[in-house]
Amino acid sequence: MSPVHKTACVIIIGNEILTGRTQDINLAYIGKKLLEKGVRLLEARVIADIEEAIVAAVNELRAKYDYVFTTGGIGPTHDDITADSIAKAFGVANEVNALARTRLVSYYKGEEHLNEGRLRMARIPEGASLIDNPVSAAPGFKIGNVHVLAGIPNVMQAMMDSIAPNLQGGPAIKSRTIGCFIGESIIAREMGEIAAQFPELDIGSYPYFRSGGYGLSLVIRGTNTAQLDAVQAALCSLITRHGGEPVVQAEEASP
Amino acid sequence: MSPVHKTACVIIIGNEILTGRTQDINLAYIGKKLLEKGVRLLEARVIADIEEAIVAAVNELRAKYDYVFTTGGIGPTHDDITADSIAKAFGVANEVNALARTRLVSYYKGEEHLNEGRLRMARIPEGASLIDNPVSAAPGFKIGNVHVLAGIPNVMQAMMDSIAPNLQGGPAIKSRTIGCFIGESIIAREMGEIAAQFPELDIGSYPYFRSGGYGLSLVIRGTNTAQLDAVQAALCSLITRHGGEPVVQAEEASP
Repeated sequence: MSPVHKTACVIIIGNEILTGRTQDINLAYIGKKLLEKGVRLLEARVIADIEEAIVAAVNELRAKYDYVFTTGGIGPTHDDITADSIAKAFGVANEVNALARTRLVSYYKGEEHLNEGRLRMARIPEGASLIDNPVSAAPGFKIGNVHVLAGIPNVMQAMMDSIAPNLQGGPAIKSRTIGCFIGESIIAREMGEIAAQFPELDIGSYPYFRSGGYGLSLVIRGTNTAQLDAVQAALCSLITRHGGEPVVQAEEASP
Repeated sequence: MSPVHKTACVIIIGNEILTGRTQDINLAYIGKKLLEKGVRLLEARVIADIEEAIVAAVNELRAKYDYVFTTGGIGPTHDDITADSIAKAFGVANEVNALARTRLVSYYKGEEHLNEGRLRMARIPEGASLIDNPVSAAPGFKIGNVHVLAGIPNVMQAMMDSIAPNLQGGPAIKSRTIGCFIGESIIAREMGEIAAQFPELDIGSYPYFRSGGYGLSLVIRGTNTAQLDAVQAALCSLITRHGGEPVVQAEEASP
């Protein structure tokens, strides 16, 4: 796809993902949302709860991509060091934000319930704008091109949904998916020739194993409908020639 | 945990993970396996099917960590560029490997079925040793400290299981998990004080949302059993003092 698309990177912060204790599902959610907006997610990193690691990743990646999204580490406990680390990356203070504090007082029903741990969640790097948390009040924030989101999936999703309308992406990235039950090695060479003819499109070949058999999904992505139509027809013809039955699945398109 | 532990990084190669089309489950599997071996997985990256991105990531990360594991991109199609990219990263040729070829001929039941796509899966960077694929024959490989595994989970798991016994890790990393239904913000400050007393342990606080309510899991990891016992007792006492009921879950330990 063309360089007119904005690019993005996700930074998943949390030891629990690296130890396999927690199965991340945030990346796939963010990836789909960005695709809808015409933003190309080119990289994701999972890093540990280590300040230097967070600072280094944020500073490297915010310079490299148009958008950066982080998940995790913005709760009330000692291992929630994302806000401090982001502040350090930007060289700004991380202090109690009046608006964030007000939201937490309201959520916890009174000043008297705003203990030290909860107040910690009101600390926002200087110059950042808040990202709403309609689930549990403690906000995320945006500083520069870095969007700092929660790690708990339902909270992260609500935050992502609230910021998505403001992301400037690029031309709609459309996709076509063709399913079949044919070994990808049967059609690999000819599919490669088709892919080589259409360098502006991404053509992915994804075999899978399910209920005792292998299936294959071919996914075509791009912005040019005529090219998508041509490749879809060529791949369906290729599958049929080798004795398979192509099934074109519903088109997905970014708005 | 101490610097005596070997360190590792996972590189997940595939556009399909970044677009959200495919939910990665390989990272969690590898993370658990490494923990069992006393290897600390410190980072994971998800990158696109772009040669320069693969070469750059492999060369950066193999210098930084003791072990690197890649998943994905070793199939027969045009978008399977991992072996070529790894060969480029190491500055070696990527040619048909006689042993890999023999295995594929056997799996596909004869020379006459070894078409161009299938033969592509026998191309292995010069100097690499093969990693067995008991599921579908096409091998992974190890070159230097880089282990190149399949992307399809059942194949990846079989490969990981076959190499795990040969990984040299470090002292067994044990963990204790304490569950309760208490807001983490209630106990955050005191838990932080306990964590500060035991800097050699990792103490993670993981709230979750399930069937209409929030729960909390506290995970303690380390190598020193006496310290683990002390922290477990201190956290249970903390939870009880705040009206919660701690439930200590089964201990996991690396062998």
